[in-house]
Amino acid sequence: MQFTSEKRLDDDTLEREFTLGEISGILWTPGSAATPTPLILLGQPGGLGLRKMYPRLAARAKAAAAEGIATATIELPETGDRPVSAASKQARTDLRAALQAGEPVTDDIIDRLTLPLVDQSVPEWQATLDALLELPEIGGPVGFAGGVIAIGVRLAVVEPRIVAAGLFAGSYVPRSTFEEARRVTIPLHVLLQWDDEGNDRQMALDLFDAFASKEKTLLANMGGHTGVPQHAGEDGNRFFARHLK
Amino acid sequence: MQFTSEKRLDDDTLEREFTLGEISGILWTPGSAATPTPLILLGQPGGLGLRKMYPRLAARAKAAAAEGIATATIELPETGDRPVSAASKQARTDLRAALQAGEPVTDDIIDRLTLPLVDQSVPEWQATLDALLELPEIGGPVGFAGGVIAIGVRLAVVEPRIVAAGLFAGSYVPRSTFEEARRVTIPLHVLLQWDDEGNDRQMALDLFDAFASKEKTLLANMGGHTGVPQHAGEDGNRFFARHLK
Repeated sequence: MQFTSEKRLDDDTLEREFTLGEISGILWTPGSAATPTPLILLGQPGGLGLRKMYPRLAARAKAAAAEGIATATIELPETGDRPVSAASKQARTDLRAALQAGEPVTDDIIDRLTLPLVDQSVPEWQATLDALLELPEIGGPVGFAGGVIAIGVRLAVVEPRIVAAGLFAGSYVPRSTFEEARRVTIPLHVLLQWDDEGNDRQMALDLFDAFASKEKTLLANMGGHTGVPQHAGEDGNRFFARHLK
Repeated sequence: MQFTSEKRLDDDTLEREFTLGEISGILWTPGSAATPTPLILLGQPGGLGLRKMYPRLAARAKAAAAEGIATATIELPETGDRPVSAASKQARTDLRAALQAGEPVTDDIIDRLTLPLVDQSVPEWQATLDALLELPEIGGPVGFAGGVIAIGVRLAVVEPRIVAAGLFAGSYVPRSTFEEARRVTIPLHVLLQWDDEGNDRQMALDLFDAFASKEKTLLANMGGHTGVPQHAGEDGNRFFARHLK
């Protein structure tokens, strides 16, 4: 892991960009916390990329740093400046065509759109986690928050170092993610935007039901896909503070 | 309104029992808050009565007092020492018979069990509110929390002084409550115990969907009917602090 830039945000959070092979990302550490600190891996929604998501990610990072928790994010495969495979381009074209025609988005399209992203990004998250946990200032425990829900579910199944996850119940969940959900046992905090027209609400409720976790919370609010109210974000921060500190 | 007893709880909350005609209840006021204070009316589940519920009510009252908010509760009709009508006895008998036979609890039983309670208790709550708001130490705004959900919904529809409600999505919701829910527009915070076997989860989700409120939150957790986790209770307290202060 190589740090390529370093700056201190106004509230004393240290922000460092890093690269790790092909992976690029950002690490935020609390300036004044006792180290080693817990860590939250910040997932990202598909397609936007780290630059567009930066303001929201930095806001979450500052809130976590105020709790003495470090955060890190990495660019998703096929996002930002990263190359996009011909198969993924085709899947995106097929998705747009289905949406424009007002046709249902088939499981086949969802699988082709999502599963390659899951298969590639989960090992990248694990390699990033290996490197982050070697830093003296990062100790764990580790949580995963937000982003593509199929990635969060896969990580919750395969990565025992992740002890709690905050998930956003978005659209386009592969069928295989439901099967994986039945094997998730860590504490979960799931956000659902109740009036999100681009989201299949019943599917989100079914996925929440599928998780085997004894401790899981569903927090549903109004405000549309991007209108998660501030109090719901604060509730997510408290979830991680409870489980990581 | 006549106060019949007065004591100071260990954290400086003042607890006063009162009677108002046939109604009896308890008022808790913060000892050290600037007055007049906001007020939360604490509903109760059916059948248990004020004495059995006292420890939980007093705990909620102390948490509210710490936020500078007064709370009050009254004995439900046909609960505690209050007389039970022959019709209600019959409805309870029919409910037990259905449950013992493993048969569905019909809408007819639910209506006979619940609607007389709603029809009698809502005017009692309103008379209590009239009297409480005449006290110099109580100013409002006013919230309603918990208890029989059909009572909370009716109050949210008919009582304009109630500006926010915290509801518990329990069983046995009359069909008419769904119709009333479509007329509720105040901010709502709805608790649902996801794995509550005595509860019809889909009905609870349908009821949440029916509310016309632009600001409504569903908070679903594991832990069974009586196992609402502490963090969910704290979240309810924050909901009222946001809307009443």
